[in-house]
Amino acid sequence: MKRFEKHIFVCENKRHDGHPRGCCFDKGSPAVREKFKTRLKELGVNSDIRANVSGCLDACEFGVTVVVYPEQTWYGGVTINDVEEIIQSHIINNIPVDRLLIKDKRFHKDGIKV
Amino acid sequence: MKRFEKHIFVCENKRHDGHPRGCCFDKGSPAVREKFKTRLKELGVNSDIRANVSGCLDACEFGVTVVVYPEQTWYGGVTINDVEEIIQSHIINNIPVDRLLIKDKRFHKDGIKV
Repeated sequence: MKRFEKHIFVCENKRHDGHPRGCCFDKGSPAVREKFKTRLKELGVNSDIRANVSGCLDACEFGVTVVVYPEQTWYGGVTINDVEEIIQSHIINNIPVDRLLIKDKRFHKDGIKV
Repeated sequence: MKRFEKHIFVCENKRHDGHPRGCCFDKGSPAVREKFKTRLKELGVNSDIRANVSGCLDACEFGVTVVVYPEQTWYGGVTINDVEEIIQSHIINNIPVDRLLIKDKRFHKDGIKV
């Protein structure tokens, strides 16, 4: 089955104030998701590429977390200033944005390091 | 990159009462997600398989919507009584549950019908 060429999930989990792990919500993830949605629509690709909110992706320590399927590419510490580069490089041209990839080995169980 | 063998997203979008498209939340999706999470933990596979809430997956008319990545399998009208079958058949044995697959052509842009 295929409905979307790319499906982008942006963590918007919110924890209570002072939680030791922090949360993507408080680091600005709603604005990141909104920018993805806005730009995809402006580019006219929003029927093939969708950006969705997700619950906790358990990558809290890396900052605002974004995972792109079907390739399962994990980005950490994403800000609104990174969205255009992710769209142009990865989403449209299939070249992941290396500097934002999560390097932790837990995200590389296939053994393919970035 | 690979962190999860399977990543299950359950729509928990909530619309206002009386909205013509309805919403997964009001059809019981929080309980569906909770059952996925509980069973994956009980089965001891929750480090490789994750169930997450997602925002609107735009399949409202098919009932509670679940999409499984990386294979992008779309299920509609999922109830808590379907969760065990999806886990045992699809998640563990890679055999999608045919009766729950969304048949609409928009979900088969690859031309592969179920």
